[in-house]
Amino acid sequence: MRNTPVCVLGLGLIGGSVMRAAAAAGREVFGYNRSVEAVTAATADGFDATENLDEVLSAAAASNALIVLAVPVPALSQMLARIRDVAPQCPLTDVTSVKSCVVEEVRAVGLLERFVGGHPMAGTAHSGWVAGDAQLFVGAPWVVSVDDHVDPAVWTLVADLALDCGAVVVPARSDEHDAAAATISHLPHLLAEALATTAGEVPLAFALAAGSFRDGTRVAATAPDLVRAMCEANADQVLPVLDRALDLLKLAREALAEGNPLTELVDSGHAARVRYDSFSRPAIVATVIGADNWRDELAAAGRAGGVIRSALPVLDSPG
Amino acid sequence: MRNTPVCVLGLGLIGGSVMRAAAAAGREVFGYNRSVEAVTAATADGFDATENLDEVLSAAAASNALIVLAVPVPALSQMLARIRDVAPQCPLTDVTSVKSCVVEEVRAVGLLERFVGGHPMAGTAHSGWVAGDAQLFVGAPWVVSVDDHVDPAVWTLVADLALDCGAVVVPARSDEHDAAAATISHLPHLLAEALATTAGEVPLAFALAAGSFRDGTRVAATAPDLVRAMCEANADQVLPVLDRALDLLKLAREALAEGNPLTELVDSGHAARVRYDSFSRPAIVATVIGADNWRDELAAAGRAGGVIRSALPVLDSPG
Repeated sequence: MRNTPVCVLGLGLIGGSVMRAAAAAGREVFGYNRSVEAVTAATADGFDATENLDEVLSAAAASNALIVLAVPVPALSQMLARIRDVAPQCPLTDVTSVKSCVVEEVRAVGLLERFVGGHPMAGTAHSGWVAGDAQLFVGAPWVVSVDDHVDPAVWTLVADLALDCGAVVVPARSDEHDAAAATISHLPHLLAEALATTAGEVPLAFALAAGSFRDGTRVAATAPDLVRAMCEANADQVLPVLDRALDLLKLAREALAEGNPLTELVDSGHAARVRYDSFSRPAIVATVIGADNWRDELAAAGRAGGVIRSALPVLDSPG
Repeated sequence: MRNTPVCVLGLGLIGGSVMRAAAAAGREVFGYNRSVEAVTAATADGFDATENLDEVLSAAAASNALIVLAVPVPALSQMLARIRDVAPQCPLTDVTSVKSCVVEEVRAVGLLERFVGGHPMAGTAHSGWVAGDAQLFVGAPWVVSVDDHVDPAVWTLVADLALDCGAVVVPARSDEHDAAAATISHLPHLLAEALATTAGEVPLAFALAAGSFRDGTRVAATAPDLVRAMCEANADQVLPVLDRALDLLKLAREALAEGNPLTELVDSGHAARVRYDSFSRPAIVATVIGADNWRDELAAAGRAGGVIRSALPVLDSPG
């Protein structure tokens, strides 16, 4: 239901962008931030923001708003405890990175039934309210969880918010999301940090650096706390893909040391990148939310590259 | 002397871009390519190109043109032998990647005295004449070698060509160039290949890939033969920086496995990238080409980030 108000907790880059994008889509939206700076800035930009958590949660409870957790992972458990006390009936989602640990926190506090995890795969190297942008999510994949516990009505609310923000919805199980995120987000961060560090030790390296280095280290400009938080929170999934990358690089090292060709790594990397460039994103249109096996059906479609570009039919609803 | 004609051997991405940029700067330029396709395309675009190597070298000898080697490294020795036979007095430069091996080839054929190595640090993932662009070098660093053997007059010719193409000249010794290139170009390619390969094996990874993965694998789209050629030709310099990156990643792996913070790698990577972003590029203006110690002075200035943005004074010349 697209007239459901949206309550954003945390007005940094992602939360602030959700607030702007939801407002731009005509949604009623209000929010909270712990620090007064972001609240002042958001208010000055014409948004309804407060640093009073109980006030914002009471308003959410009164309007049955969709609550969007956009705080750093370490702040989640305290925030969830307040939601349980003040707004336990509200539908709930999040926009943080790693999903499995969020699901565990939500389960621990007893709110799992109303929760559907989310992850917009967008960002910049900047942070804070001022870095936010109503267009940040346009065309970006926004994962909406299809774990076994997920309620069809809450799922639809969360998917609608993502679509309203201009994103395409990728349905995925939390564990599969975390393995993929380790590969396409956390591993690139670690490689970028290693590349930047290595170059910082070689005279003349910065003097000659061009596109390969700039692109390869772009995400090393991300705030260190954010990088650490997302990699450490997803360590179980990062380890196997980091090991795989290390093995590939060690094989390349041996080939170079022995004067053998680098064919294997270079060919497989090129082939994978070419496959990625031509990876098709078929629209998911046929699944009925709430019908038998709808979660498994969506998880399989997402795995195959499928995305949701406009609202899916819902069981027993007129549309 | 900016009225020296330019003879480009090899009309791929780099050679073709040099031809276009030199012509756009008002230079007389003619060129050679082994395959008729590039010659036909260049001719159709209004350029003076031929697939007859003896013809183009005779023309270079007759006009004392600056010869620019823009062929793949494996083709160099055969090309150099023909230059020695037909145009041994011509000033000579190259625009290939790794410098030390080119210097050895040129020395072996007896042309070292007329040779000053070059390397424009620009490129795209595309190749061939059609991918060329007169603007490719605008603002890019273009290394011009200041090895001990380098002749001031030839050096000035090569630096002038780079400046005419819109590049900034970075003076560097060939061995230092190769170590830096290993770090900021070849290592990023290997990391990109490993990242792309790893992601290609994880279900859902391509479906969720966004900016971190796109940027981190961009150079994996480069033609595999080019990647192999530049990494293998520079293996001696790639090995130590690859080992350094592997060590950093292994330490991060241990930290993750033991539940320790990733502080060390993430902080050092971030700090290096921030330093790179604020790396200043002071203009080198005071060195007199041909004066005592001019090569060492330029090498030191280049190491410190200095670049040449307009022609330097030359000893015993009126300017």
